Amino acid sequence: MSDPVVMFLTDYGLSDPFVGVCHGVIATRCPRARVIDLSHGIPPQDVRAGATVLARALAFMPVGVMLAVVDPGVGGARRGVAIRAAGGHLLVGPDNGLLWPAARAAGGAEAAVDLAGSRFALEPVSATFHGRDVFAPVAAALAGGAALEDAGAPIDPASLVVLEPLVAEVEGRTVRVRVVAVDRFGNLELAAVRADLDAAGVPANGPVVVQAGGGPVGAHAGRTFSDVPAGGLLLYEDSSGVVSLAVSCGSAADRLAVTAGDELRISGP
Amino acid sequence: MSDPVVMFLTDYGLSDPFVGVCHGVIATRCPRARVIDLSHGIPPQDVRAGATVLARALAFMPVGVMLAVVDPGVGGARRGVAIRAAGGHLLVGPDNGLLWPAARAAGGAEAAVDLAGSRFALEPVSATFHGRDVFAPVAAALAGGAALEDAGAPIDPASLVVLEPLVAEVEGRTVRVRVVAVDRFGNLELAAVRADLDAAGVPANGPVVVQAGGGPVGAHAGRTFSDVPAGGLLLYEDSSGVVSLAVSCGSAADRLAVTAGDELRISGP
Amino acid sequence: MSDPVVMFLTDYGLSDPFVGVCHGVIATRCPRARVIDLSHGIPPQDVRAGATVLARALAFMPVGVMLAVVDPGVGGARRGVAIRAAGGHLLVGPDNGLLWPAARAAGGAEAAVDLAGSRFALEPVSATFHGRDVFAPVAAALAGGAALEDAGAPIDPASLVVLEPLVAEVEGRTVRVRVVAVDRFGNLELAAVRADLDAAGVPANGPVVVQAGGGPVGAHAGRTFSDVPAGGLLLYEDSSGVVSLAVSCGSAADRLAVTAGDELRISGP
Repeated sequence: MSDPVVMFLTDYGLSDPFVGVCHGVIATRCPRARVIDLSHGIPPQDVRAGATVLARALAFMPVGVMLAVVDPGVGGARRGVAIRAAGGHLLVGPDNGLLWPAARAAGGAEAAVDLAGSRFALEPVSATFHGRDVFAPVAAALAGGAALEDAGAPIDPASLVVLEPLVAEVEGRTVRVRVVAVDRFGNLELAAVRADLDAAGVPANGPVVVQAGGGPVGAHAGRTFSDVPAGGLLLYEDSSGVVSLAVSCGSAADRLAVTAGDELRISGP
Repeated sequence: MSDPVVMFLTDYGLSDPFVGVCHGVIATRCPRARVIDLSHGIPPQDVRAGATVLARALAFMPVGVMLAVVDPGVGGARRGVAIRAAGGHLLVGPDNGLLWPAARAAGGAEAAVDLAGSRFALEPVSATFHGRDVFAPVAAALAGGAALEDAGAPIDPASLVVLEPLVAEVEGRTVRVRVVAVDRFGNLELAAVRADLDAAGVPANGPVVVQAGGGPVGAHAGRTFSDVPAGGLLLYEDSSGVVSLAVSCGSAADRLAVTAGDELRISGP
Repeated sequence: MSDPVVMFLTDYGLSDPFVGVCHGVIATRCPRARVIDLSHGIPPQDVRAGATVLARALAFMPVGVMLAVVDPGVGGARRGVAIRAAGGHLLVGPDNGLLWPAARAAGGAEAAVDLAGSRFALEPVSATFHGRDVFAPVAAALAGGAALEDAGAPIDPASLVVLEPLVAEVEGRTVRVRVVAVDRFGNLELAAVRADLDAAGVPANGPVVVQAGGGPVGAHAGRTFSDVPAGGLLLYEDSSGVVSLAVSCGSAADRLAVTAGDELRISGP
């Protein structure tokens, strides 16, 4: 039988030892567990960004425990939870919407427990590092075969905090859309799907117009980077089916002078 | 029986292949070893910062081999050492104080060897990358069950280079303290413990005053981020029991315009 | 028998989830595989830098599958390939020169296949993320014991794209050389070997002169950092035998105000 797997996502970054210390806790509590660092580069305290990454990644992960911590409310009133979703996926983290899109992507939450006073938590539980003291040891226990019901008090899955995704607005022949994320290559992920562009008559292949803070910029709707010459601006669906902008051999973020959270307008030629 | 574990801490960063190459050496010499990357974000050549992280992390790690390399003196006269500490912990790295606080935290060094000419080192040993050529293969050998005494020539544990922690200075009703580290969230770790604040009459709960380069700034002594409103400055004990400053949903480093090494003064209201 | 090993190198960085998602794919297809993250800090789309790191690392890695993705041409006409090199090393990635120096370092490519339509690829294959959809699952299949010939259609290894290394130019008593890479410590890796310096009469031990954009700067040719005082500029062979420049307890990149791609001139005293 294969070793159990823990997928681990945070906004801790890798310059501090937070991630490494959580790995230590997992290895102490469940030595057989293999940990996949899904991402620790979520922008600090950006619950929505973490939720989006987690939900999209699900289809590419083995069935196991998803340990996710983007937790601006640590130590306050927000609940810590563990969730069993359809297909056997387990999710552990703060109940602030971070886990909900992944649970929905898995087919829905089947059961959930509140981790307050969990028997699997470290003693004592600090006020500021529940990743180490609550979520990592609970994830390790579940990876090791503990029952969800032993991790905390049952709660109604319908009571979990819901986080709906950002959506685009179609205004006649124009789509107004926010930049959700900028990746290392300067590619812009937009809060839009192809149907939004269709509704505004923006073609899937051919010239389009993009407007950020500056004046309108010509772009080409296509399929991949080589559909435009080097330096050309490309409107495309990324590998998750999300509408995106890229500059071939360059940075769309630099070209359009935008960052995550900014608004763009896209229209046909 | 579980696989042996190597905890790995350096100032190598993750933009270069140094860490990955050491992983390769460990996997070659001890294929069963699991490596936990404790941190590779120690500020370059900051032995004290590395020592502090290593010592604090110890309690959360499985018993195994701690491989630590922050080594401004590589290729020079400093010794390379392997140490057996109380509780079965093994530590491998340069003898420049990096390992000493962790050995003390484990209960003290019981035995140590000098790694000059170690039979486990790669051939040849480069002048500038002992992490790869000496420390990683020695750590792998120890993880694989080799005896400490086979890794080098015995030395007196009392001869190991000692690194005492920074301490705060209490001056009447004021605590003068240095910023030890700034984390990704802009939280400031201070070289002080609660007893220092008590000695100056700084309350554990209520208004306090912090002074950096600029004028005095009002803060609140509390327990966790939600004890202050968003944007509020919080004086608290972090998850390691270290006195720290944070801004709820913000950055204390930005608010106070300080960085690691800077001095602050803290006093009661 | 030990678990199979996949060495993983990309220009994806660690701030996005690209690397983590590929880990998920590998764990899904070959749960026993251990993945060594060789480096994900290759400068974006810098095929030559990735190729150099991969080839130099080979000698320190266990025999396994090298999965490498620096792929500016993804989705275009470039081939995806898997290669069996001498000594049993397997290499998987785009056929843009990235894999060739490592294959040569291993002793040469013995067989190769084109991964177009590979039975091991995910369905569907996206236009922009072949690391996830083609290269990671193929690497996992090979790690799990699949035959190279089952991964794609055979091609002539002599048809693989070749990438020759940068070389220095010796002009009388001066060596003109490019900066290949700058590491975290500000050390400069140069496109030169010791023989180039010998040809120009640059000593291996003693004073030398380095000229970047500014005027000539005095340096010392030596063996390791402690051969110069703190702040001194050192010309040395790094741990891969590559001619390099460093400032003891400082940054040669800052001192000389140069970055990767810049040209330097080195001469004797």
